[in-house]
Amino acid sequence: MKILILGAAGMVGHKLAEALLAAGSLGGRPITGLDLFDVVEPGVSGGAETIAIARQAGDISDEATVTALIAARPDVIFHLAAIVSGEAEADFEKGYRINLDGMRFVLDAIRSVGGGYVPRLVFTSSIAVFGSPFEEPITDTFLNAPLTSYGAQKAICELFLADYSRKGFVDGVGIRLPTIVVRPGKPNKAASSFFSGIIREPLAGVDAVLPVDDDVRHWVASPASAVGFLIHAATMDTGPLGARRSLTMPGLSVTVAEMVETLREVAGEEAAARVKRVPDETIKAIVAGWPRDFDASRALQFGFTADADFASIIRAHMADEAKRSG
Amino acid sequence: MKILILGAAGMVGHKLAEALLAAGSLGGRPITGLDLFDVVEPGVSGGAETIAIARQAGDISDEATVTALIAARPDVIFHLAAIVSGEAEADFEKGYRINLDGMRFVLDAIRSVGGGYVPRLVFTSSIAVFGSPFEEPITDTFLNAPLTSYGAQKAICELFLADYSRKGFVDGVGIRLPTIVVRPGKPNKAASSFFSGIIREPLAGVDAVLPVDDDVRHWVASPASAVGFLIHAATMDTGPLGARRSLTMPGLSVTVAEMVETLREVAGEEAAARVKRVPDETIKAIVAGWPRDFDASRALQFGFTADADFASIIRAHMADEAKRSG
Repeated sequence: MKILILGAAGMVGHKLAEALLAAGSLGGRPITGLDLFDVVEPGVSGGAETIAIARQAGDISDEATVTALIAARPDVIFHLAAIVSGEAEADFEKGYRINLDGMRFVLDAIRSVGGGYVPRLVFTSSIAVFGSPFEEPITDTFLNAPLTSYGAQKAICELFLADYSRKGFVDGVGIRLPTIVVRPGKPNKAASSFFSGIIREPLAGVDAVLPVDDDVRHWVASPASAVGFLIHAATMDTGPLGARRSLTMPGLSVTVAEMVETLREVAGEEAAARVKRVPDETIKAIVAGWPRDFDASRALQFGFTADADFASIIRAHMADEAKRSG
Repeated sequence: MKILILGAAGMVGHKLAEALLAAGSLGGRPITGLDLFDVVEPGVSGGAETIAIARQAGDISDEATVTALIAARPDVIFHLAAIVSGEAEADFEKGYRINLDGMRFVLDAIRSVGGGYVPRLVFTSSIAVFGSPFEEPITDTFLNAPLTSYGAQKAICELFLADYSRKGFVDGVGIRLPTIVVRPGKPNKAASSFFSGIIREPLAGVDAVLPVDDDVRHWVASPASAVGFLIHAATMDTGPLGARRSLTMPGLSVTVAEMVETLREVAGEEAAARVKRVPDETIKAIVAGWPRDFDASRALQFGFTADADFASIIRAHMADEAKRSG
């Protein structure tokens, strides 16, 4: 089978490509081709010689580019390409062009192929489709009322995905990812960056800034879980989903205090002491508008599984870092 | 003030234009200009000589046309232009072009004017944004999971409206209209046509077909209420709406049996006897997927008002018909 990953240079896309190459198959079918696409050329390599890997840098908001990618008739398409929340908020037109028009080009390209071509399309959505005031926990029938353009674009893409699937043009699954913790690498400018930073930096012997109160609660999942969600979404039976094609993925609802306490248990007092409380009113205000807890019954019912606990998330990050440096 | 009505040749748009011309003002401000736009030239006339009426036939999915309409900087824009559910289902591309791209052109044209131009935009959405299985009654926090392309397009437009309003580009209000009963004129091919037909035809001395069971329940409002919703949406204080700019309008949840019984009370046994029960399994299946009852608390809280009862709806239709034929 042939697989296309849109957004393969991002953290989750890269890990997904590595996992697919390591497995050599998806849903029991051997992988013969893996097309990796992103705005910069994806650096993934490895895998069996029987897998033809193609790497391409391009613009997902260029219709001809997208049409050419889909013309290769991949059996499974993972669509992770997006600009992040902060950039979509700062550059309104770019956000709609990349995050919305890009998805529509993908869907229309698929529809245009015709001839019984109905690939599985796994779309990464986000809990940013929800906006306060929330019900708590947020259930699978709560309205999408995003408070960012990024969230609006994801919610609109979910509606496209459902309608194109209902019409039989594509076999879509949308997965609303929790905040991914622990992201490897450097801190970034995302308001959510500290959720990874307060674990990653102390484990690397570096101080980390905690800009919010200890009682802040958030919905998180590990990078490994995100890859697991994607692979399950690509192989699950979509029949029972009906017209509701997007699912809130199961995460862990944990407070900052619980995160730091777990860090102490797993890595010791010295690590926990590296978390420095430096309140930032701007970040506090942004985070106050984010969802804290979900009842992800539907995803659990359809076989998606969450991380066991926050200690597992920390240990998985430590193992990844050891492998990388080792 | 200048007003633009997109979709002014439709039943509700026409009645809205007539009501505005008769009032001569909106929200206490005199109307100086009324631009009427539709795919066919709107036939509305009348009103004071101080109101400059312009009529134009054109294509809402033509960006240049929309940009030119908005360049006149109307203070209030009523956007009712759409192709109906059945046509959007039959012609997928046309549905997205008219019902979605048209709205986006309107919003982007407004944003492009700039210079502090932030008009009130009243968008007619629909209860078709909801799809079964429902909560009952459907509250203001229930998810949009449409089961038609028309419903998907309306739900997407609501997300655009909310995001463009949140960003300060437009001052939007979306109103989800109930099924409008009694529609004047001839039966049409809409599956909902019989809800008007079983009242309109008997009152005109003609037999009407009832294709569904008597216990079918539906959410309805009169044409006069629809005009009232539009005018209130154009003049209300939008500050308290926050980011949730679309509201389910208050209707009446009535069964077919109650409709026919009310017809009997208002117009007599002979009229009620003209309703002929001819079950149609196709229509029964379609209607079974429609919402039956809403808790429209939010709209009521913001000052929208429903019809008093179904007898008032029938009497209003009879008065309209008497005026038309008289």
